[in-house]
Amino acid sequence: MFHNLKMVSKVVFGRGCFSQLGDILQAQRSNNKATMVFLVDDVFEPGTLKDRLPMKDHDLLIWVNVDDEPTTGYVDQLTTQVKKIIVGKFGRRPDGVIGIGGGSTMDLAKAVSLMVNNEGSAAQYQGWDLINNPAVYHCAVPTLSGTGAEVSPTTMLTGPEKKLGIHSDYTVFDQIVLDPELIADAPNPQRFYTGMDCYIHCVESLEGTYLNTFSQACCEKSRDLCREVFLTDGPEANGKLMVASYCGGMSIGYSRAGVCHALSYGLSFVLGLHHGIGNSVVFDYLEDYYPKGVKEFREMMEHQGIELPRNLVADLGDEQMETMIDVALVMKPQWENTLVTRDRIRELYLKM
Amino acid sequence: MFHNLKMVSKVVFGRGCFSQLGDILQAQRSNNKATMVFLVDDVFEPGTLKDRLPMKDHDLLIWVNVDDEPTTGYVDQLTTQVKKIIVGKFGRRPDGVIGIGGGSTMDLAKAVSLMVNNEGSAAQYQGWDLINNPAVYHCAVPTLSGTGAEVSPTTMLTGPEKKLGIHSDYTVFDQIVLDPELIADAPNPQRFYTGMDCYIHCVESLEGTYLNTFSQACCEKSRDLCREVFLTDGPEANGKLMVASYCGGMSIGYSRAGVCHALSYGLSFVLGLHHGIGNSVVFDYLEDYYPKGVKEFREMMEHQGIELPRNLVADLGDEQMETMIDVALVMKPQWENTLVTRDRIRELYLKM
Repeated sequence: MFHNLKMVSKVVFGRGCFSQLGDILQAQRSNNKATMVFLVDDVFEPGTLKDRLPMKDHDLLIWVNVDDEPTTGYVDQLTTQVKKIIVGKFGRRPDGVIGIGGGSTMDLAKAVSLMVNNEGSAAQYQGWDLINNPAVYHCAVPTLSGTGAEVSPTTMLTGPEKKLGIHSDYTVFDQIVLDPELIADAPNPQRFYTGMDCYIHCVESLEGTYLNTFSQACCEKSRDLCREVFLTDGPEANGKLMVASYCGGMSIGYSRAGVCHALSYGLSFVLGLHHGIGNSVVFDYLEDYYPKGVKEFREMMEHQGIELPRNLVADLGDEQMETMIDVALVMKPQWENTLVTRDRIRELYLKM
Repeated sequence: MFHNLKMVSKVVFGRGCFSQLGDILQAQRSNNKATMVFLVDDVFEPGTLKDRLPMKDHDLLIWVNVDDEPTTGYVDQLTTQVKKIIVGKFGRRPDGVIGIGGGSTMDLAKAVSLMVNNEGSAAQYQGWDLINNPAVYHCAVPTLSGTGAEVSPTTMLTGPEKKLGIHSDYTVFDQIVLDPELIADAPNPQRFYTGMDCYIHCVESLEGTYLNTFSQACCEKSRDLCREVFLTDGPEANGKLMVASYCGGMSIGYSRAGVCHALSYGLSFVLGLHHGIGNSVVFDYLEDYYPKGVKEFREMMEHQGIELPRNLVADLGDEQMETMIDVALVMKPQWENTLVTRDRIRELYLKM
């Protein structure tokens, strides 16, 4: 059985296309009392972006904080807030949810668009195809590129019991607005780490055995674009990074990340590191597994003037170390092509 | 304004995935009296493919003939046939239309799926966004790759007055089933010419000025895959050709073919040449415009043992020649980057 990939329904790409968002949303507004919910990364609260949001009278703007990765509790809180205001005031569900930000913000928008149409807590739906009702219309406007969240059928959430996505065809966005100008101001090292989420995913997938020609083509193009973006000073770097992320995301259906992602999960779980930076920290120690990829990654770091955080693990107690190893080992498919022991994982972690 | 691209909703890719078609369609059948219409290229009538069609009691199989490119008259005839049988017998519209074949068959499936829900003749809807009602569910199973018809928002039709597509978001397929095994038996030179439809489109787009980073990435990957398929004897050639066609089709929203397509339209109009072979015949004489591309194209021909038909134009009368020049010149955007005269076009045609 091959996975039947659900695609994002509509994609607009181009420098400045964010200014079309108003027209795009207008087509989704059922009448002049229609309401849209804008979830926007609160790093933009002080800036001018909010003046460009195509909001109408009944719309709702919520600044979301993604200093920590999204939790089911935060999704529940946002959903309650939306229902209280919009359902309470207008007696109806919102017409749509728009997420403006990076991977975490987009994941929150996916989750809230699902949860306004599904009862209970987001935690009940962590897993595969547990969602009963389709989401309301949902749209993403990435301001950081590399996670692939704009195209993936998953919203990754940390719940009370587990870190696991809500995987569903209903999770996939109805619309994405890819405006390279919106990622132009993303600061390093965040921009670099998010890009590396994409690059490392592609390197791991291309070295793995779980890959078909469709995903191979997507991964190759994505990796090539990452090279152009992070190793050269050529034109259209922002557009290329957006397309790299799109292609990387498209590859996910028939590809699989490897060892780096498994180890990075351990770091995230115990140290709370964001996924992108966790991947970069780990990847730097994986030259035994990916000699060419790690060499190129280091060239990218040098070209971009990035210094990785070091000595993250030194102060950890034994118990935390064992937990970290447990979390890494749970990711069985990621270890598929390599013999691994707890000692080997400990040895790798101790370098970080 | 950037075009807001409507994507195919679901894509399944993999060797042998055609066997999943039954399950995929089952999810679209509203009840046990649901009816699906299979439009299948009649080249498969003698073979074993029909035994693999996941047909149910109330389904309808129509063998379609695409020796000539699709006409609005043929679409009307097929639509009447479908309505007479299915609406007549069951008092309801079909649940879906499945096109199995090359670009022309897929275009017929798109057009019939639209016309069962829209009144009048297909000729009334040739143009942009003239369709009023959404199509019924429609699905494509390509058995030839390169046209991009599986992903494009167009069904190209020759009408009583013009050759012009029905361009609409509603035209886009709900599902495509990309099984490389199904194109494995496509005979040369047809396979080659269809592949060149893709290759030449990409070369022309990449040399043109109307291109953004999204389409550039799609064109580059598509062209690279065509190179692998037609210049090397590497593995997975069928899968790569399918992905090349998919990527080429994805590029169409923000790219534009050039001189070759304009001249090829003239050949098609006057001589009835299919689009793929027309493109190849023309491209061989365009080294002034695309020196690298034409060189590579000739290497591909040699590697694949293809001989182009020659002396196609020698016997044409003056009037036909002038018509051919008229048709080529109508395609104004295609001549955008070059100074052109009727004499120059005549000179090129006379070589063919």
